[in-house]
Amino acid sequence: MKPSNIIDLNDRKAVEDFVNRFDYIICDCDGVLWIDKDVIPGAPQTLNKLRSLGKKIIFATNNSTKTREEFLNKLKTFGFVANLKELFPSSYTTAIYLQMIKFSGKVYILGSSGIAKELAKVHIESFGVGPDETPSNWSPGMADFDLDPNVKAVAVGFDNQLSFPKLAKACSYVKNPKCLFIATNRDETYPSSKPEVVVPGPGALVSAIETVTGRESISLGKPGTFFFDCIRYIHPEIDPKRTVMIGDRLTTDMVFGHNNGLKTFHVQTGIGTFEEMIDFARSDKSEDQLCVPEYYAKSLAQILPFL
Amino acid sequence: MKPSNIIDLNDRKAVEDFVNRFDYIICDCDGVLWIDKDVIPGAPQTLNKLRSLGKKIIFATNNSTKTREEFLNKLKTFGFVANLKELFPSSYTTAIYLQMIKFSGKVYILGSSGIAKELAKVHIESFGVGPDETPSNWSPGMADFDLDPNVKAVAVGFDNQLSFPKLAKACSYVKNPKCLFIATNRDETYPSSKPEVVVPGPGALVSAIETVTGRESISLGKPGTFFFDCIRYIHPEIDPKRTVMIGDRLTTDMVFGHNNGLKTFHVQTGIGTFEEMIDFARSDKSEDQLCVPEYYAKSLAQILPFL
Repeated sequence: MKPSNIIDLNDRKAVEDFVNRFDYIICDCDGVLWIDKDVIPGAPQTLNKLRSLGKKIIFATNNSTKTREEFLNKLKTFGFVANLKELFPSSYTTAIYLQMIKFSGKVYILGSSGIAKELAKVHIESFGVGPDETPSNWSPGMADFDLDPNVKAVAVGFDNQLSFPKLAKACSYVKNPKCLFIATNRDETYPSSKPEVVVPGPGALVSAIETVTGRESISLGKPGTFFFDCIRYIHPEIDPKRTVMIGDRLTTDMVFGHNNGLKTFHVQTGIGTFEEMIDFARSDKSEDQLCVPEYYAKSLAQILPFL
Repeated sequence: MKPSNIIDLNDRKAVEDFVNRFDYIICDCDGVLWIDKDVIPGAPQTLNKLRSLGKKIIFATNNSTKTREEFLNKLKTFGFVANLKELFPSSYTTAIYLQMIKFSGKVYILGSSGIAKELAKVHIESFGVGPDETPSNWSPGMADFDLDPNVKAVAVGFDNQLSFPKLAKACSYVKNPKCLFIATNRDETYPSSKPEVVVPGPGALVSAIETVTGRESISLGKPGTFFFDCIRYIHPEIDPKRTVMIGDRLTTDMVFGHNNGLKTFHVQTGIGTFEEMIDFARSDKSEDQLCVPEYYAKSLAQILPFL
């Protein structure tokens, strides 16, 4: 039995009431619109229909592997209507953050090219992206490299080129308390196309660096409030009370919604399950209550027939 | 000012009193006897002199990168007198642990060859050691591999061949609650020969996997009590009250000593500094008091003239 205060968007009346409550949609991407290279059936049609009803859409993803332009291409390929100003990957919010604090220096990236390209657009030099294999002369127990004294920040994102030298370099820079330690986000895992395969997210690398250095990162992704500040910076007219957050992760997307006074809609096509939603709803811990959505559906497509 | 209850072994009287209080020495290796490929000056002479005075010596290291035989060679090369029965690297204690619980199945190793070789000696099959680079067809955000259903344990040690696929595989196995999740130890860093270079230890990888899977590891290294049980299993005559733990890490070696009722001697040639020792001594937290040694010296060599 689900608690009665969580509404399943499975009939016309519920969906109509829901749709009348917002003007803006902030929509997560991985696990809501697609998983890796596969679009989630019905997601483009549903979002496009909501847009045709006059709803404004923001695509907000903790994914930092791509630039806004690359995300725009992916959206268009899958048939989503979208434009550049609507796109907020955490690669972009990282660049905005560094601009806002008037950052000066180089950035060491333990992450993918999306971060490097967004930083380059705001004239911030960075390096670290790509393979960096262990030299054959490193015996077990050692590491040997020179640090660039101009590095004043480390940015950690999803990195499927993770290697021991890269982790050691990130830790060595972060060990210096004057070096900024930025997590584009702390997602523990990425949605996986094989149920038995776990895809470790930036949260894994951030935990590793925190353990090694004893420092805590600044997290620029959901569920933090900076991410919404950044959206509002570009879209000052957005009204949190007339905005709904749509996402698959209970512990980031739904918490982000509550942290910023948004309505919350959980779609169960990605990481967070119906059972986890119910477990959070039944918990008496206040932090667990932040993971509970107001609305849910098996998928975005579930509401399409009622729009 | 140091607290008066921590004794600096810097005169004949202090060293004589100290030496009369124990029969057995449990001695850490990295940071006490050597750093990477360099012996710590005077360490062999001091330990050999203690041995000639009738003291029994156990070499106990969280380092899991080598087998007992390989550690023995390293000790002998540096001029230490030693024999195989005295050697307890965490590669060996991992093998003993799996034997004691009558483990059946394969082990996936995120670590070095020392673990694989010690497991092979007790007829446990394992794989995972060595390079495992990211296939070029893995796009950012994905991982794709098959799991071996016979893997029933993951053992994490120091791994300077860490890669994204290896982390993803370790996490995927550990995600199964029936798979044992073993940390050979949780050392955050290894001693580094360059002060600005941080060498991440197994603790970094264990934290990453715990973050991703939500599981906690079984830690077989210091400061856990299993490590001492294992020494006692091979040396049943050892009396904790007549044993001193010598080490450089306040948070592992000294805690290990206190956890097992041993005397504690901190040598300041590795990770833990005099200043950190004083900070722990001044703290009123009980867990910090476990990091405070009874004796300390700048190096093992400091006590040699008084033996």
